[in-house]
Amino acid sequence: MLLDQIRKANDIKQIPREQWGELAEEIRKFLVEITSRNGGHIASNLGVVELTMALHLTFDLPKDKIIWDVGHQAYTHKLLTGRKKDFDSIRTYGGLSGFPKREESNCDAFDTGHSSTSISAGLGYVRARELTGEDYRVISVVGDGSLTGGMSYEALNNAAQAKSNFIIVLNDNEMSISENVGGISRYLDGIRTAKGYTSLKKKVKGSLQGSRGGRALSNRLARIKNSFKQLFVPGMFFEDMGITYLGPIDGYNIRQMQKAFREASRLDHAVIVHVVTKKGKGYRPAEEDPARFHGVGAFDIETGESIRHSDKETCTEVFSRALMREAQEHDRLVAVTAAMKDGTGLSEFASVYPDRFFDVGIAEEHAVTFSAGLAAGGLLPVVCIYSSFLQRGFDQIIHDVCLQNLHVIFMVDRAGLVGNDGETHQGLFDLSYLSLIPNMTVMAPKNKWELEAMLHFAIYDHDGPIAIRYPRGTAFDQLRVMQNKIRYGKSETIIQGEDVAVFSEGHMMKTALRVTHVLEENGYHPTLVNARFIKPLDTALIDAVAREHRVIVTIEENAKSGGYGEHVAAYVEQANLPLRVFCFGIDDIYVKQGSIATLKETVGLDWKTVSYQTLRFLKEAGVSPS
Amino acid sequence: MLLDQIRKANDIKQIPREQWGELAEEIRKFLVEITSRNGGHIASNLGVVELTMALHLTFDLPKDKIIWDVGHQAYTHKLLTGRKKDFDSIRTYGGLSGFPKREESNCDAFDTGHSSTSISAGLGYVRARELTGEDYRVISVVGDGSLTGGMSYEALNNAAQAKSNFIIVLNDNEMSISENVGGISRYLDGIRTAKGYTSLKKKVKGSLQGSRGGRALSNRLARIKNSFKQLFVPGMFFEDMGITYLGPIDGYNIRQMQKAFREASRLDHAVIVHVVTKKGKGYRPAEEDPARFHGVGAFDIETGESIRHSDKETCTEVFSRALMREAQEHDRLVAVTAAMKDGTGLSEFASVYPDRFFDVGIAEEHAVTFSAGLAAGGLLPVVCIYSSFLQRGFDQIIHDVCLQNLHVIFMVDRAGLVGNDGETHQGLFDLSYLSLIPNMTVMAPKNKWELEAMLHFAIYDHDGPIAIRYPRGTAFDQLRVMQNKIRYGKSETIIQGEDVAVFSEGHMMKTALRVTHVLEENGYHPTLVNARFIKPLDTALIDAVAREHRVIVTIEENAKSGGYGEHVAAYVEQANLPLRVFCFGIDDIYVKQGSIATLKETVGLDWKTVSYQTLRFLKEAGVSPS
Repeated sequence: MLLDQIRKANDIKQIPREQWGELAEEIRKFLVEITSRNGGHIASNLGVVELTMALHLTFDLPKDKIIWDVGHQAYTHKLLTGRKKDFDSIRTYGGLSGFPKREESNCDAFDTGHSSTSISAGLGYVRARELTGEDYRVISVVGDGSLTGGMSYEALNNAAQAKSNFIIVLNDNEMSISENVGGISRYLDGIRTAKGYTSLKKKVKGSLQGSRGGRALSNRLARIKNSFKQLFVPGMFFEDMGITYLGPIDGYNIRQMQKAFREASRLDHAVIVHVVTKKGKGYRPAEEDPARFHGVGAFDIETGESIRHSDKETCTEVFSRALMREAQEHDRLVAVTAAMKDGTGLSEFASVYPDRFFDVGIAEEHAVTFSAGLAAGGLLPVVCIYSSFLQRGFDQIIHDVCLQNLHVIFMVDRAGLVGNDGETHQGLFDLSYLSLIPNMTVMAPKNKWELEAMLHFAIYDHDGPIAIRYPRGTAFDQLRVMQNKIRYGKSETIIQGEDVAVFSEGHMMKTALRVTHVLEENGYHPTLVNARFIKPLDTALIDAVAREHRVIVTIEENAKSGGYGEHVAAYVEQANLPLRVFCFGIDDIYVKQGSIATLKETVGLDWKTVSYQTLRFLKEAGVSPS
Repeated sequence: MLLDQIRKANDIKQIPREQWGELAEEIRKFLVEITSRNGGHIASNLGVVELTMALHLTFDLPKDKIIWDVGHQAYTHKLLTGRKKDFDSIRTYGGLSGFPKREESNCDAFDTGHSSTSISAGLGYVRARELTGEDYRVISVVGDGSLTGGMSYEALNNAAQAKSNFIIVLNDNEMSISENVGGISRYLDGIRTAKGYTSLKKKVKGSLQGSRGGRALSNRLARIKNSFKQLFVPGMFFEDMGITYLGPIDGYNIRQMQKAFREASRLDHAVIVHVVTKKGKGYRPAEEDPARFHGVGAFDIETGESIRHSDKETCTEVFSRALMREAQEHDRLVAVTAAMKDGTGLSEFASVYPDRFFDVGIAEEHAVTFSAGLAAGGLLPVVCIYSSFLQRGFDQIIHDVCLQNLHVIFMVDRAGLVGNDGETHQGLFDLSYLSLIPNMTVMAPKNKWELEAMLHFAIYDHDGPIAIRYPRGTAFDQLRVMQNKIRYGKSETIIQGEDVAVFSEGHMMKTALRVTHVLEENGYHPTLVNARFIKPLDTALIDAVAREHRVIVTIEENAKSGGYGEHVAAYVEQANLPLRVFCFGIDDIYVKQGSIATLKETVGLDWKTVSYQTLRFLKEAGVSPS
């Protein structure tokens, strides 16, 4: 196997040219096999096999710095830098990351995970190189989807001023995650279809020079800054900004790419090399449905069918169904997503109500303020964004939605531990960063029926910004009978007991129920409370609890810092209530990858750890079983 | 006075055309007079007098929606919508806001304050109009500086898909706040200088048609999508995205602007009207130094000299001086700002070390990740951004700086109450949103000398992300003798007492000192602690304090929610310490405009309120003077 000959960076340079095709095929086969077992971002990885080979054949790692935007497409890069032996562990606990990680290899120049950061980071390296006098190449590889993110544009705007070489590889697969949206897509489309520009350039110039009037005109044209370039050079927007444009180039022609990279390396400023690729290349199921194969769990290689471990509905599916029902009744209800139509469960809504559906691209900042505008214009926007990506819209939530107290509903999906994608995708901060914003209301449902009820509440029983957060994966489907009407700011008491009260945030109810049972087995009569509202805090309930309890235990799938438990503890302290508070949540760390179950054990949020520690705490607090 | 005839929206339409010039002059005089007394964003307002008049002459308010990007340039808009009578109160407590406010007038369609939001918000209105079937125009007025912000681009990318009229007025004054930076500036410059395009277009076409070869070529050109447009139409990037471009148009020719606005109104999609203006127009001192006249305090009309109320150094000046000293010793130290060179005190650094200074434009997201790249490349970036604007970089701090634990120093200026700019500019959340991020260290200096010492500490005694936050205005210049060496995570005890300990965050030390004196006058012997580190919390000190005290009072210029006091209270509660905690900070509200002194009284952070409430609390807690 050719792939086995590659044990470290630059080994690929020993593979003779005639065998490049064979190597690419081996890599593709290997990637499909691995991801069919471990899941992963298969479509984008299959698309860039040759592009990655061309980069590694041209440049010198780890000296040169390749920065992979988003980073989920770096599998071939990992294979070519000596990590094949660890590939079985990819995306699993303690194993290879599904993203570039500086601590994993010195060939990974910058950690990525969210979109549109690579040009900024790359430019940082370029400027550092200029000042330190070191000698290396910087190559940022960015997808066309990432170009819909404003950060890319902010960075391009600055890259135009670079005084030394900076190579930006535009990996154009005409997709972001689902289909690409908006003007930049149309612009790139224009470039792609404008074949033959270069030869035409000479002809027109010749023709104009041929006649007297033409000659004068040609001179006049030459005086007008950039005018020829505007006619003949695809990518002239980049050129006009001061960035050289090379392309479009076939992303499966390694020699052509090498030539372009070498040419690009000679320039003393920023250059875009526009490479056209195809998501899912070489694996038919992924080529045919790249959106579904964007990020997948385990699947059957033959059919491409995903192997589901559970028949139960996910929270996303519950929301999706609930939204369809609400949308039928409420014709001013619209849905907004940032390139996550499938992931956030909006596909059906989009096809039934195309006019009421807005996919704004990978552009969370715009998504939030756009929604504020929709609300100001009389609509009711439901904004569906993953917890970790909504961090991008933090200022816009403060400045555009909450300050004007607009009725915008945030459906915060993937809130809590997300599993195999790791640090960059964990949704562990939203309770903290949303709760600190004035006018914001923050809810979390205990089970699938409450998720539906909360959406209904947010639509009809509330005016102003409101967020509903729920985790990745299966929706909790117990406690159906507990369907108390939602009242603003009020928690829900599931079990009324004494001495110790367990306050549970959202889907931690599943854990809290088991903890409650353990406490009962140990002779306690615990109270069990479903927080429902993280903000505002139900202080009346806490006051009431203080009368018949001595301990509150809070459980949340969020950072402790600024989270639900800290707010409970700070309130109890300041109100001088005769209670002790013990908080379960995520410590002040980044949580790495692994299955959600494993991660819960690691961070101490599994029912066993919570039960054990709670019992210990009760003992320490002198609260004995009755 | 013509201006007095305008008592409500549309009254301007009664002013005969011949008197428009006179009206503009009256407005300018009025604006200079008002801002010379109250301060304000004079340069940008003077630039858009005629543009605003043209908009009001063409459109119908409040039916039509004009959205002012940033919003500080809306003074003429306010004058033309019946708010002249209240102008004496502009930017003062309880008075007219210096920004558009929906609650102030139904002619203000959307609240603004931060940059680059207007196209997103406008597009929200456009989409809402399409769905509700209402009939109004939407006009977003955005400066060229705001186009350096990625959000504008995200929104343009989406605006290209609008199915009905949407007018984007590009107010191009070739400036953001200081000089504009980067590629988009160069691009607009190219458009501006390309005069005569339109007439040229016909000539070239004629010439090509004249000869046989030319004719064939012309036909071939026509087949290539957009090729003519690319040659002849300035703004073809916008055109290629699918947005019609009109311009450039003289921003002082009202009739020409009216014509363009009417033409733009006829289109069934998004259109950019490119209007060229000049900051400070008509007031010489502002024309000559528009950066200084961007946002000013009171000034002398004759000379343009600002009227300073104090000879004391501001925190910004203290930092500026300290940075110059450090930069001399440390040649890998670089400074990054997002269009706030003057405001953050980097002007001198920029002129002495131009290669080590990076103004990235109004692009906080990029600024943060770019800095992460600089750090990865071996430099030590000092990132200078106002507290409320740094909210824009929240995800990048989490995802690019802190996750990789990079040594980046954040100088968070304007942290706390900022005064007359109001809600959008108050820096009241940074302690909360920075403290919740793993790996981040957050400090606040008690006085000018400690600000210097903290910068030094952050450079030499720390590795990893670290933020130093300090307020607008005069640096506190007492307690010079208290120059204990800064030790990581350790607070500083200023006065050792008993029973009650006052924990003071940063510059609240000035207040805390007076509160301490009041407590002493009332017979207490209070301890006074300078927090120094907001994160990590100095729990060892709290434990120690618990042994000889019964009460901790925290004072911070930040939201209580997720702030310093809550962290202290949550710790005390969970550690079961025999202490009561009482927190002073900002309640869960947006704080409006006013002088900082007035605002401190309003929110209860003045020394009198804090002293009075502390005494009351001590009494309630049963802590008597000894």
